[in-house]
Amino acid sequence: MTGTVYLVGSGPGDPDLLTVKARRLLEEADVVLHDKLPGPEILGLIPEAKREDVGKRAGGDRTPQSVTNERLVELAEAGETVVRLKGGDPFVFGRGGEEAAYLADHGVPFEVVPGVTSAIAGPAVAGIPVTHRDHASSVSFVTGHEDPTKDESAVDWGALAATGGTIVVLMGVGKLPDYTAALREAGMDSDTPVALVERATWPDQQVATGTLDTIVDARDEVGISPPAITVIGDVAGERDRLAEFLRGY
Amino acid sequence: MTGTVYLVGSGPGDPDLLTVKARRLLEEADVVLHDKLPGPEILGLIPEAKREDVGKRAGGDRTPQSVTNERLVELAEAGETVVRLKGGDPFVFGRGGEEAAYLADHGVPFEVVPGVTSAIAGPAVAGIPVTHRDHASSVSFVTGHEDPTKDESAVDWGALAATGGTIVVLMGVGKLPDYTAALREAGMDSDTPVALVERATWPDQQVATGTLDTIVDARDEVGISPPAITVIGDVAGERDRLAEFLRGY
Repeated sequence: MTGTVYLVGSGPGDPDLLTVKARRLLEEADVVLHDKLPGPEILGLIPEAKREDVGKRAGGDRTPQSVTNERLVELAEAGETVVRLKGGDPFVFGRGGEEAAYLADHGVPFEVVPGVTSAIAGPAVAGIPVTHRDHASSVSFVTGHEDPTKDESAVDWGALAATGGTIVVLMGVGKLPDYTAALREAGMDSDTPVALVERATWPDQQVATGTLDTIVDARDEVGISPPAITVIGDVAGERDRLAEFLRGY
Repeated sequence: MTGTVYLVGSGPGDPDLLTVKARRLLEEADVVLHDKLPGPEILGLIPEAKREDVGKRAGGDRTPQSVTNERLVELAEAGETVVRLKGGDPFVFGRGGEEAAYLADHGVPFEVVPGVTSAIAGPAVAGIPVTHRDHASSVSFVTGHEDPTKDESAVDWGALAATGGTIVVLMGVGKLPDYTAALREAGMDSDTPVALVERATWPDQQVATGTLDTIVDARDEVGISPPAITVIGDVAGERDRLAEFLRGY
């Protein structure tokens, strides 16, 4: 009988922020396919014999998505219960949608186990609510790391600026100068607060704060490197108000 | 000594989608302040003696936010370990930002425990990835239930349409006719897929699908009532491709 594939979100990295269901599935699964994004603490919970790293191949190259897709089907057809573990939530810039479609097209039953997304939790543990009645009626998530096969940028920074809401950029450390410039050109105030949260909830979490004008320098001074979340909008200024009494990470 | 307040997200409603930390805090807390949004299954996990409903007051009116804020401070100052349990994630349209600010302003230490947001998990368990490499480079979350004290709509539907990304509306069952009309007026294609997911992950979950033109009728035929999530964008069409092999809810 064909096994089931669970597309499981691991949350931002703290094992305590796994869902109860994800935690149980890591124990019950026959095989766990993962890359490095869930982080060392969560990967450390998975028995070595079950772990299959699909992040990198032997030569150090990134595993093509097609190879991961085929492996999921192969394991399920062999009757295995498979967890495909994704950093954050599987359906937020995680290519989980593509994996789900491939499984459905090949007749493999699957289940989605949503996770805590770093896009919300990263700002939150740094004292930044992505929405706020006084500051932001909407929040938009985009990726700063675009599909290199696309000819032009699919992200309309001008339209995002025009929403007036919070903008959260995932995987946006390297292109920070580009999109902060694009937002200024679109008319966003140079003094708009911006924060970077690196490795949110990991033991080595780092935060840098500034404005649309100063955040690139702040990034370099603090030494923020990927993976990190960028939060752009008035809500990023709440951190100053909350930090003294904020506990946790 | 002042106790700590934990602003805890309960996720969409299935107790299995509580985080490990939220589950533990429900057991360890002295008091759990909640409203109805976490849903009956999760509220049923909390020992009766610890539960304090701040959703409604004795007369049936909604508890003013100021009363909840003051109660959190009062309990913490009495040395209690307090969980403020919120449906979904505390910092996504949950007024968690306001509660955090009030606590900080009153010198009460607090921690944010992010949860699985219904805005992502609701669509996901219905077979809809909010982002997808082929369909959506961004996703925006807005509330359909605006602050009645605001003079005019703070949501710029035209700007949201112009992003070209997925739009997810929380608490948007009642105003569905208004904002689908606003999006059409802003130039969004009438054939754009739309889905409604009511009580995502609850035993009585319901889904209705249609287009920008037909979803109001679909809502009424299926009988969708609050709480529900609205997903607008090409990704909503993925459900048809995935549904046959999608398991879980």
